Amino acid sequence: MKKEVMVEVSARHVHLSQEHVDILFGIGYQLTPDKWLSQPGQFLSKERVNVIGSKKTFENVAILGPVRKNSQFELSLTDCRAIGVEGVLRESGYIDDTPGITIETPNGKVLLDRGVIVAKRHIHMTPQDASDFGVEDKQIVKVKVNTDREVIFGDVVVRVHENFALAMHIDTDEANAAFIGKGVIGEVIM
Amino acid sequence: MKKEVMVEVSARHVHLSQEHVDILFGIGYQLTPDKWLSQPGQFLSKERVNVIGSKKTFENVAILGPVRKNSQFELSLTDCRAIGVEGVLRESGYIDDTPGITIETPNGKVLLDRGVIVAKRHIHMTPQDASDFGVEDKQIVKVKVNTDREVIFGDVVVRVHENFALAMHIDTDEANAAFIGKGVIGEVIM
Repeated sequence: MKKEVMVEVSARHVHLSQEHVDILFGIGYQLTPDKWLSQPGQFLSKERVNVIGSKKTFENVAILGPVRKNSQFELSLTDCRAIGVEGVLRESGYIDDTPGITIETPNGKVLLDRGVIVAKRHIHMTPQDASDFGVEDKQIVKVKVNTDREVIFGDVVVRVHENFALAMHIDTDEANAAFIGKGVIGEVIM
Repeated sequence: MKKEVMVEVSARHVHLSQEHVDILFGIGYQLTPDKWLSQPGQFLSKERVNVIGSKKTFENVAILGPVRKNSQFELSLTDCRAIGVEGVLRESGYIDDTPGITIETPNGKVLLDRGVIVAKRHIHMTPQDASDFGVEDKQIVKVKVNTDREVIFGDVVVRVHENFALAMHIDTDEANAAFIGKGVIGEVIM
């Protein structure tokens, strides 16, 4: 069996807690799905925020829903340099000792004390996919993409959950380094 | 023998012909070396230019000297998207059928009709290095970097010349994809 996975590119985006949605959009506000993403139940919302760093403001930054326990801002290392924040490489959700940043809408402003991360490249898969691929949750694998600028990505974290769908996520720096446009098939190498 | 090479990061920069130096800085003007680079005789010049795309202007863009036969603007794919120019992957000097762009100083303006490239990753080496590494000019190799975000770069072009010094050059997207800061040692893999 060929161990292939669709490689999807994540541009900068925030995840918000309901507490922060309340501040930014109004008490009890519900994010509005605009486009459903590859992971079941996950969506790009119609709402947008501005993210304000020491050197620059990113306007109209995407919010990915639904709401989470903690707010988080994911960006590329290129973005980090532009906005003026340290680039700290983390798996999503692991935000201890990460930098903070300011998120703003016309309705309100949130001073995140932490949660700014450059996401570790990772593959979402179901337990069945993991069995098919012969890998397990948290395993580190390599993924090769055959573009005009071939790259083998190391340090790819496998994340297994029954609610996941098979897809690899990389950021815009990683996509540009490999000349990946909308998406490409990657081959998992152990 | 370990086949190791220093990996250097090239930010966006231009190379200029003397004809274009004449227009941008005055007839017969000589670029002033500010810092010598790893390749013998190559320098970062004190002079700077603005590069004007359809979506943005990059100000204070570095000029690498000495002058060349043809002017050329090298940038990352991230830069291409920001400034509004198609990203065309090329070896330095191979500028047929590449996009053009406008280069400006307070003294003058040049409308490049071609020469905008995203540089192919490459390794400069001497004939002796090539012999030591067991590779030859134009050969395509892979280079592995052991950072926090391990990457094996494929499609790396070996370029052999007696005036070269051993160094690999990648752009800022490639550096950021691998979390490479000032520089790192890469291992050449065949």
